[in-house]
Amino acid sequence: MSVVTRSHAAKRGAYTPSADLVGGVLAGQPVAIARMISRAEEGYSEAADALAEIYRHGGKAHIVGITGVPGAGKSTLVSALIRAYAEEGHKVGVIAVDPSSPFSGGAILGDRVRMSETAAAGNAFVRSMATRGHLGGLSRSTLQAVDVLDAAGYSPIIIETVGVGQDEVEVVAAAHTIVVLSAPGLGDDIQAIKAGILEIADIHAVSKSDKPEAAATVSALRGMMALGSDGPASRWSVPILPVSSISGERIRELKDAIGAHWLHLEESGELAGRQRNICKTRVLGTARHLFQQKFQQESDTLEAHIRAVSERRMDPSVAARALLGWEETR
Amino acid sequence: MSVVTRSHAAKRGAYTPSADLVGGVLAGQPVAIARMISRAEEGYSEAADALAEIYRHGGKAHIVGITGVPGAGKSTLVSALIRAYAEEGHKVGVIAVDPSSPFSGGAILGDRVRMSETAAAGNAFVRSMATRGHLGGLSRSTLQAVDVLDAAGYSPIIIETVGVGQDEVEVVAAAHTIVVLSAPGLGDDIQAIKAGILEIADIHAVSKSDKPEAAATVSALRGMMALGSDGPASRWSVPILPVSSISGERIRELKDAIGAHWLHLEESGELAGRQRNICKTRVLGTARHLFQQKFQQESDTLEAHIRAVSERRMDPSVAARALLGWEETR
Repeated sequence: MSVVTRSHAAKRGAYTPSADLVGGVLAGQPVAIARMISRAEEGYSEAADALAEIYRHGGKAHIVGITGVPGAGKSTLVSALIRAYAEEGHKVGVIAVDPSSPFSGGAILGDRVRMSETAAAGNAFVRSMATRGHLGGLSRSTLQAVDVLDAAGYSPIIIETVGVGQDEVEVVAAAHTIVVLSAPGLGDDIQAIKAGILEIADIHAVSKSDKPEAAATVSALRGMMALGSDGPASRWSVPILPVSSISGERIRELKDAIGAHWLHLEESGELAGRQRNICKTRVLGTARHLFQQKFQQESDTLEAHIRAVSERRMDPSVAARALLGWEETR
Repeated sequence: MSVVTRSHAAKRGAYTPSADLVGGVLAGQPVAIARMISRAEEGYSEAADALAEIYRHGGKAHIVGITGVPGAGKSTLVSALIRAYAEEGHKVGVIAVDPSSPFSGGAILGDRVRMSETAAAGNAFVRSMATRGHLGGLSRSTLQAVDVLDAAGYSPIIIETVGVGQDEVEVVAAAHTIVVLSAPGLGDDIQAIKAGILEIADIHAVSKSDKPEAAATVSALRGMMALGSDGPASRWSVPILPVSSISGERIRELKDAIGAHWLHLEESGELAGRQRNICKTRVLGTARHLFQQKFQQESDTLEAHIRAVSERRMDPSVAARALLGWEETR
């Protein structure tokens, strides 16, 4: 069984320098992979060179983002996809960034039942990222984890996320293929939160296709897409696929659509543009994260400015500019 | 009627310099308030001095954050609170940051029915903030909008938000009193997303108290709070209040609890510490935003680095450090 969880890796013996893990990652060794991901997650500066080296060996994997509100059935869908990919002999990687995911160790209601089921399917590497304590670096470490799986030969690599919030949107935007999962019967209020995500979908999936309400959700999505179709003609026509993860019905169809989208990106030449956008998002997100980290360390100057703002001698924007060392050029 | 919406303000005549709006804001003129908020929202650098001046005149309002997942009934609750405050002659301000809020202009399913109802209660200023196009500056402009209402004499000022995502959490953290609304019958999956927010609640409200499931939600919250009660003894005991916004039942009780919490902050001396934390969050959030803005303008250097990352000659962290002009000191 090649599913390795964090606690599993943490129990092992003495500290291995990150540089020594690179070979293990490239050779696809699960323990090396798990440790390298932990170091990315914990933001070890010692791991920076190793991660840079690992990055250079990546770029082969098909990265698939699966997003949708909590309760839409993402984790069940991901489990079904893992099985479908594993059955075909793919080395499938999963990074879950979702506080409600059963893959998440920190989730209040986390159960690991489904995870063990999928582990039995073999050839999968499932890892959840903690959604707190990242000082805004969640997307950075999540995508470094994807880099590690990429360099280790995993493909596809599925990122599961709720897709709400800046970090989560950054994570989804780093996928080649974005699957948005909608659930029939969830209130319209709840669906509305996804408004920003709906339009970046490459594939729409509608869960619980056995429910009679699923047809209404499919039509609603169709209607929404018809509204947005006056942009430049794209050669990729976004499919809307009802799926039932429990029975496995049409999971294969979804898997095929994901594969077809990858083929489309390659054949149409769109892949290069998408890759560029992914890199841009990553570089900007990383810079933001690094900057924030540094800023929170210079605490004396910061304290003086906070006091000035607190006493209303200075407004937050002026204080921020002063801390940045920027001239007041307004 | 003193409820002014954005489009209302936008229809007015020639451009007024921001400096000229300050007097109108301080005099509590709704049109000046609406315009000033629009300029904060649009990030006009021309408005910076005016906003700094406005900030100096604030600090009197009681800022109340109301958060909870979509579907919990926040907007209904806020409408009921507006009525309750207005009945007592308070000038109540509401800033809604919620893609699913009926107050939000951009919401797919936005209805303005409830807003007009509350408008009829008079003496209220209701404004929704666009949740996109802020380049990460959502919390900055939202809190500037609060500053404007504060300087204009509104109190309490209610911020309504889903409380998920970095920007939204920053917004909630800027309130003196945080009300977390839970709904009975929403799945545990959905509730779990709030895990990070639950622990910062000063008051728990449980909506739809007429439903039989409400009692279970109340006990669940009690259980959760019992688990977390081994911290330093706080003199404020977080109340759990079942409310029914539709019948108005116990809305007054919630309003009183909000008032009691403010009194507690003042009398216990906790207000200063909370104010400090609010300022810290705002200064850091603003710096992050300004930085990001600047970064996105230096596009040539950025392009070269994106290309290097795209071609795997450089990893995103190295590129980000180079763009920041930071020495490689690892």
